[in-house]
Amino acid sequence: MSPRPIELRSDNSAGVAPEILAALATANEGSALAYGGDDLTAQLRDIVREVFEHPDADVFPVVSGTAANSLALSALCPPWGSVLCHETAHIFANEGGATSLFSGGAVMHGLPGEHYRLSPAAVQQAFDRTNWGDPHHSQPSVVSVTCPTDFGTVYTTAEVAALAALARTRGLRMHLDGARVANAIVALQCSPAGLTSAAGVDVFSLGATKNGALSTDAIVCFDPAVADQLVYRLKRSGHVASKMRFQSAQLVAYLTDGLWLRLATRANDAMAALADGLRALDVTFLAEPQANMLFARVGEPAAVALADAGLLFYGMGNGVIRFVTSFQTTEADVAEVLTRARSILAP
Amino acid sequence: MSPRPIELRSDNSAGVAPEILAALATANEGSALAYGGDDLTAQLRDIVREVFEHPDADVFPVVSGTAANSLALSALCPPWGSVLCHETAHIFANEGGATSLFSGGAVMHGLPGEHYRLSPAAVQQAFDRTNWGDPHHSQPSVVSVTCPTDFGTVYTTAEVAALAALARTRGLRMHLDGARVANAIVALQCSPAGLTSAAGVDVFSLGATKNGALSTDAIVCFDPAVADQLVYRLKRSGHVASKMRFQSAQLVAYLTDGLWLRLATRANDAMAALADGLRALDVTFLAEPQANMLFARVGEPAAVALADAGLLFYGMGNGVIRFVTSFQTTEADVAEVLTRARSILAP
Amino acid sequence: MSPRPIELRSDNSAGVAPEILAALATANEGSALAYGGDDLTAQLRDIVREVFEHPDADVFPVVSGTAANSLALSALCPPWGSVLCHETAHIFANEGGATSLFSGGAVMHGLPGEHYRLSPAAVQQAFDRTNWGDPHHSQPSVVSVTCPTDFGTVYTTAEVAALAALARTRGLRMHLDGARVANAIVALQCSPAGLTSAAGVDVFSLGATKNGALSTDAIVCFDPAVADQLVYRLKRSGHVASKMRFQSAQLVAYLTDGLWLRLATRANDAMAALADGLRALDVTFLAEPQANMLFARVGEPAAVALADAGLLFYGMGNGVIRFVTSFQTTEADVAEVLTRARSILAP
Amino acid sequence: MSPRPIELRSDNSAGVAPEILAALATANEGSALAYGGDDLTAQLRDIVREVFEHPDADVFPVVSGTAANSLALSALCPPWGSVLCHETAHIFANEGGATSLFSGGAVMHGLPGEHYRLSPAAVQQAFDRTNWGDPHHSQPSVVSVTCPTDFGTVYTTAEVAALAALARTRGLRMHLDGARVANAIVALQCSPAGLTSAAGVDVFSLGATKNGALSTDAIVCFDPAVADQLVYRLKRSGHVASKMRFQSAQLVAYLTDGLWLRLATRANDAMAALADGLRALDVTFLAEPQANMLFARVGEPAAVALADAGLLFYGMGNGVIRFVTSFQTTEADVAEVLTRARSILAP
Repeated sequence: MSPRPIELRSDNSAGVAPEILAALATANEGSALAYGGDDLTAQLRDIVREVFEHPDADVFPVVSGTAANSLALSALCPPWGSVLCHETAHIFANEGGATSLFSGGAVMHGLPGEHYRLSPAAVQQAFDRTNWGDPHHSQPSVVSVTCPTDFGTVYTTAEVAALAALARTRGLRMHLDGARVANAIVALQCSPAGLTSAAGVDVFSLGATKNGALSTDAIVCFDPAVADQLVYRLKRSGHVASKMRFQSAQLVAYLTDGLWLRLATRANDAMAALADGLRALDVTFLAEPQANMLFARVGEPAAVALADAGLLFYGMGNGVIRFVTSFQTTEADVAEVLTRARSILAP
Repeated sequence: MSPRPIELRSDNSAGVAPEILAALATANEGSALAYGGDDLTAQLRDIVREVFEHPDADVFPVVSGTAANSLALSALCPPWGSVLCHETAHIFANEGGATSLFSGGAVMHGLPGEHYRLSPAAVQQAFDRTNWGDPHHSQPSVVSVTCPTDFGTVYTTAEVAALAALARTRGLRMHLDGARVANAIVALQCSPAGLTSAAGVDVFSLGATKNGALSTDAIVCFDPAVADQLVYRLKRSGHVASKMRFQSAQLVAYLTDGLWLRLATRANDAMAALADGLRALDVTFLAEPQANMLFARVGEPAAVALADAGLLFYGMGNGVIRFVTSFQTTEADVAEVLTRARSILAP
Repeated sequence: MSPRPIELRSDNSAGVAPEILAALATANEGSALAYGGDDLTAQLRDIVREVFEHPDADVFPVVSGTAANSLALSALCPPWGSVLCHETAHIFANEGGATSLFSGGAVMHGLPGEHYRLSPAAVQQAFDRTNWGDPHHSQPSVVSVTCPTDFGTVYTTAEVAALAALARTRGLRMHLDGARVANAIVALQCSPAGLTSAAGVDVFSLGATKNGALSTDAIVCFDPAVADQLVYRLKRSGHVASKMRFQSAQLVAYLTDGLWLRLATRANDAMAALADGLRALDVTFLAEPQANMLFARVGEPAAVALADAGLLFYGMGNGVIRFVTSFQTTEADVAEVLTRARSILAP
Repeated sequence: MSPRPIELRSDNSAGVAPEILAALATANEGSALAYGGDDLTAQLRDIVREVFEHPDADVFPVVSGTAANSLALSALCPPWGSVLCHETAHIFANEGGATSLFSGGAVMHGLPGEHYRLSPAAVQQAFDRTNWGDPHHSQPSVVSVTCPTDFGTVYTTAEVAALAALARTRGLRMHLDGARVANAIVALQCSPAGLTSAAGVDVFSLGATKNGALSTDAIVCFDPAVADQLVYRLKRSGHVASKMRFQSAQLVAYLTDGLWLRLATRANDAMAALADGLRALDVTFLAEPQANMLFARVGEPAAVALADAGLLFYGMGNGVIRFVTSFQTTEADVAEVLTRARSILAP
């Protein structure tokens, strides 16, 4: 009999939080205006303004993080612009050119940086190498940070603020890919505004799908001029759901009474326990896991054995494997993972 | 006390069918591979092949009808091509240039036609006026029909087949905007294949949202080369939901055991009853309502009075109002609408 | 022996004016900075400001009228916008979707209008039918007039100014396709500014190729913010010639001492003589020829006979033929055309 | 009195070869069909087929190298594709995102490589890192080499052929940016076909402007299916000159009786003499100058002194300066440059 599989491939493999499903059922009573003219969408806007502490904040539900990132960036970056980001950023490496499509040909500029984080020095160097105003060269127009990064590290609020301030020195806008932003906020123990509006972020992707929503993320925008564009950009890219109230209902529930942060806390706590346990087995990591992702160097034979033992994860090549926890990962899951890992890594 | 509002604005204002909500709850058990690598998505593909009777059919869930139409068309039409459609077609008049965006600048060519339907004569005339091969002129590349039309009329399967055959004479592809395709199939009492694969349609938009799904429509594609493109086109436009199984689960439930046709039958039957009742009041219509939409000439004063009486509908200007029924419209709703209408239109 | 062919197909079939060729030879002395950093390009800017009486005018040489129109429009119209123009406008009917390409999917909206001219009433009607601010619908963003039109009629300066004023009422920009603008200015006996900057035009295409230049037209722009965009839009579309001085030299010669107007006068005068002669033969025209184009109803048999008689022209179908004169059309040419026409039309 | 300036900034600063100007004057006799329907354009096609030894070759004159590259690449690379090139390639670093614009969002992937040349190893590594068929990732679709490179080095014909063969192993197309291809052919002493059609190149940019033409380069295409696309892509990007015969006349003269190679020989010989002279002064170079470009390490003080001495060149920073010779650079120029350089570098 094969062992019970334990899900650590991705928080995208997790399901929908019961609170979110309940909100959908509630929203299903009665009828409502389509295309966001409903009460729940209005309520969502109010909550976003409150939670992210910005009177002009606007919010646009979308079906994916790629949509959130690329549409937001297309409203921040002219066709002849470039987006500066870390060379491991999802927008650079994993979105199939979405931002180039939506922006009319803008380019992504991947920069190196320790701990998978963009550094002010790298941005400054990119600035220094730019022929500003020379149309032979794409003009840096946006700085984008991913927090947590795709490798599970987290920028401090001060680091984000410093990058935003640096961006401003040359007139660039600041974008944050927050596919897992709840996990970052929990990790940093900061306020939601602290990592976003107060840090100088203009627009960010508010991930919810990976943290318990049903295919619903959102763009949150602190600049009304950008929001005005997004109204059109979303519609003409097919990203306005006619029954928007079902997206809004989820996001309202998600942001109300801290549900999103409680869900993220579960994922982060599970990861912390998993990391502690692996460290005790002398496993080393590509980076210190600060949120809910961990990249462990176990070697290929152990990777195979762990998979055979029923652990579900992604291999990154060269004996490195990726574990991702979610709001559904239980303490029992972690304990069982560590038991199986121990038998393989420290028999 | 104001009268109970009765929803006739749009089938987009309706909610989610209980069977669909139940399918979501079921799909929420366990975890699954993201991005369509799950069992439910595989199952969906099988069902689509069976229901639409085509061994190579493929299916791509998306969040909106605009996404379904514009992405499908971008895979059928080169950047220098044009899409021939009726001048009232949603793709021409209501999608904010989505197809132009996704295709890299293709143009929509709206043609006149009685009963809001594209005629072979209009298409032939467009062909005759084309300078084929002359790059000064966008080259007709796709014929697109909307069935039911945005004005509630329906093409017969023979009419669709005739247009598809005509399209083939000049190498054009055939697209069907099926935002309400279930209502058409019910109205025509044809098989699902009869209006699509067997009629020579290459790709169609399978609407589900207006008929009881939760922000889930789909592209159904009978040409593997087009499907190969769509894999990329959907991802890079942000239209691949990571938790795709929740879309697939809905569509599986929708297409299984004829649920979609039962839901559409309710809407169509409600509309038939409503139309009969209005006719008895000597109300005339822009077109004979063949599915679940009706455009009634009532005059502006009556339109105001009907709204005051609690009927929810859209005014089209010049005293014409639009009624749309959905799977949630009950016999009691129709009876009540007619009672109120009678008191205003035939007091 | 076949008769001497006489060129009336298009002013594009004409050659290069000797004054322009001489300017090229002069510009070929010495070397110069590339990409517009040369003295001749600076001189061109000064001349444009003087001739079109606008202190902020800027000028961008390009290789074709399609480039001039579509790049200018892409800087005036957002991706979700539409350009209102006459349904016979070159930008709508003959540029293969160029503006849609460069603007990221904007749409052209062709409107009817007598004498091939856009009327304020048609524009107002388009405004009235627009759902302003509704992203389902492309938002009218530019009014574009072609002067002379593609059918040889000319707007008065007051008509252009009225359209520009109407455009302003809804925040639209005003564009003029001036592929043959010199012919219009000569026909109107107005100042160059009178038809452009003083009439409220924001950007226009300054055609020169059809009137004696060597594949050189230009965008003239009265709005520095638009010019800032064009710097990038031209470069990234490959429309910045490295040896720009050879384009600038032509345009400097063209605009200096009225050469452009003298060349256009020749074409217009030739057309006036031709039209008089044809009228004397009872030939009727699609429209009164006001510049250098004429569409004559001669019937198909006469069209064939005229072609056999060595006249080079385009058939438009239904027995209508197009004659275009150029700066190279001589009085002798016109006399000979009329002689041959007389023998066929009034034997 | 300041010293006579000597032009070494760029071959773009040079003028038009007298033979080319003469060809323009000849082409100016008579009238001709517009848009490439003329005899000279037909003649050009024949010459291209002969010179590049390919029966299906087609040729499209354009106004700039950026146009030639980006339009060609847009016909070779799908919107979701990527172009592999050296990280110093003009298409990657100096065209302002032109290919992304024309392709609908394709991305350029700059790879490292010694001597500014793309190596098979770098391409193979890029292949190995690609998730083929995964739409999260842009799919490598074209390999593009620049020959000579932007740093004056040259690929051998065997190196180009090896890269083309490698590209074919994964179905990629092969593109060559030949902005200075005549200089490469002269340097390699190969046949024109040897570096292009016979080496497995599908499409290349035939630079002529830098080597004596008047703002005229061309796309040469060995694949009829690609040529079919280019007909539309050029027109709708405004890159079809109505008076195309004046571009074709230049290119006919250029390719006839080896004029292009004689002009390039002058530039290369001048560079060889210049390099020899500088080497004798112990100046070192970033790379061995194999064509008509040289990057010399002279230090900032000497760079300033050389500029003060009347030499026109570009500073690259860090005391490196770029010299470019052209067909107009004379032996006397080189001697004079070396005399001045000697007085500064070896006083």
